[in-house]
Amino acid sequence: MSRTGEFQIIDRFFTHDAFGEWQSQGVGDDCAIIDTGAGRIAVTTDMMAVGTHFLPTARPEDIGWKALAVNLSDLAAAGASPRAFFLSIGLPERDDAWLEGFSRGLMALAAETGCALLGGDTTRTADVNGTRAPVTISITAMGALPAGKGLMRKGARPGDDIWVSGTVGDAYAALKHRWGHWQLMPDAAEALFARMDRPTPRLALGSALLDLATACSDISDGLRADLGHILERSGVGADLRWEAVPISPALRSLSVKAQQEAALSGGDDYELVFTAPESARLRIEQAGLLTDTRLTRIGKVTEGITGDNLTVRTESGAVVSTAVGGFDHFAG
Amino acid sequence: MSRTGEFQIIDRFFTHDAFGEWQSQGVGDDCAIIDTGAGRIAVTTDMMAVGTHFLPTARPEDIGWKALAVNLSDLAAAGASPRAFFLSIGLPERDDAWLEGFSRGLMALAAETGCALLGGDTTRTADVNGTRAPVTISITAMGALPAGKGLMRKGARPGDDIWVSGTVGDAYAALKHRWGHWQLMPDAAEALFARMDRPTPRLALGSALLDLATACSDISDGLRADLGHILERSGVGADLRWEAVPISPALRSLSVKAQQEAALSGGDDYELVFTAPESARLRIEQAGLLTDTRLTRIGKVTEGITGDNLTVRTESGAVVSTAVGGFDHFAG
Repeated sequence: MSRTGEFQIIDRFFTHDAFGEWQSQGVGDDCAIIDTGAGRIAVTTDMMAVGTHFLPTARPEDIGWKALAVNLSDLAAAGASPRAFFLSIGLPERDDAWLEGFSRGLMALAAETGCALLGGDTTRTADVNGTRAPVTISITAMGALPAGKGLMRKGARPGDDIWVSGTVGDAYAALKHRWGHWQLMPDAAEALFARMDRPTPRLALGSALLDLATACSDISDGLRADLGHILERSGVGADLRWEAVPISPALRSLSVKAQQEAALSGGDDYELVFTAPESARLRIEQAGLLTDTRLTRIGKVTEGITGDNLTVRTESGAVVSTAVGGFDHFAG
Repeated sequence: MSRTGEFQIIDRFFTHDAFGEWQSQGVGDDCAIIDTGAGRIAVTTDMMAVGTHFLPTARPEDIGWKALAVNLSDLAAAGASPRAFFLSIGLPERDDAWLEGFSRGLMALAAETGCALLGGDTTRTADVNGTRAPVTISITAMGALPAGKGLMRKGARPGDDIWVSGTVGDAYAALKHRWGHWQLMPDAAEALFARMDRPTPRLALGSALLDLATACSDISDGLRADLGHILERSGVGADLRWEAVPISPALRSLSVKAQQEAALSGGDDYELVFTAPESARLRIEQAGLLTDTRLTRIGKVTEGITGDNLTVRTESGAVVSTAVGGFDHFAG
């Protein structure tokens, strides 16, 4: 899970010339890809705060699940197999009911994916002017990669197909509904809430794409933003066909304008967007069948152009314009 | 850096039967020691909050240095060589001056120890009732270990010597002075502030002890608490001689009672406490010389007894009683 505006902070304050014995192949990627001298590992870290990444009313089970899921999604985007994670929690006070629920959701996904909790730290956050700080969660997850392999954002080539897994826009629509901005029918709302609260990291798909995709990212900031990172790192552009973008039946119950906003600018879906040569189409379709993952071709990689290098058009040729999206904690 | 009372939270909510392909040799230790199938690594994680682990007035440079130092100290306690770290920062607002200072202190220690920053995440913490949350920092550090090696808390045997590096109690005395509880002369205060604000992880010593020590921990919670963890994990007891405990000249300017409180119960020194057989004495003294580290024998490991298994006596045989110490964020 990377957030567009934060790149500036990382770039400005924490970028440095390489030193030391371990170096990352994936700077600015979903994961660091590290050759330890005795094997290749992928590592990712995410910090999340209740009230920023989770609604204050979110159930602790869902927070636990999703806190790990967003990290596993980064491993999936690198094609890595999850092995271990490390957890830090900052709490304003010890709250056993919250911790129990959080642990239940967290460990359910950990056990399901074979990602063991091998260390952690808890700390109490100080009150400020008598007000309690929000719960803060930081997870660092590690995965294994075959020697010399690992998917990154760079590598997309003109002529490549652009693929996306699952459907996009669901989590954003659920959030809009929960905020009261959009109105959904009860059945549709329930389906979308499940997508927002319990995202499924595409681990099996990521591994299957190791020898097929030329570039890959998960969709945390939105399709436009995350595909945009691939294009930027690869020095290429892209043309997308709006009608090809996979939209769930629940999201289809909204206006086309809302669908476009959700699917192109909304984040938090934790699907994978990736590029691959046309020659890999059949094997990619097979990978989708084998991993029980819906895969859709949504456009083509083009030669790089400066400025806006991603165009989304409808069948009739009209340009679909939505904000670049990508939630920026520090914007404004 | 582990904090006594938090063990309860980790034990109760986040302990589980082993699963998955990676398992830790160091559960409950300063580091997880993991065989990845292609090499052995040590991993540690710490979360720190300004106002809890750092005084609200602490300089950002010092916060950056110390945030990494406490993690490197955990690697030192395992005998691991630092290789990479991952950083998450939760900020109430983007503050470039703070970030610049923080980064300067952090990267100075990173470059000095060859520990590269290979990934990170920043997040904005939400205001609660219009009040800004404290800055929260989470670091996960990784180090390399030779195959089959790594220091843990378990392994101390009756008859072993107990050693400590450097001097103990300095950081606690500095904190007491800054709080206005204790009065220090200006020169002494300056020396102790340096120890509190810029701790030196004992990395070279930790590596040198890999083939010599039977058990090791860093001193984050205090000598009594951290040696206590070694004794508990090893199922042994210990007798310490108070006069042998290494005290800095600055700390000696305080009353003996204050010295005892600081040296035995105070934490945050990031020295190493370790056990080793008498047969290793000469080689340990050589390791101290080679790594330019003062090493002092302070007592002996005894047969384990239930209940209070650590006794500190003066030359005259009187028992020195201080609180077990170990700062507990969730106590009371």
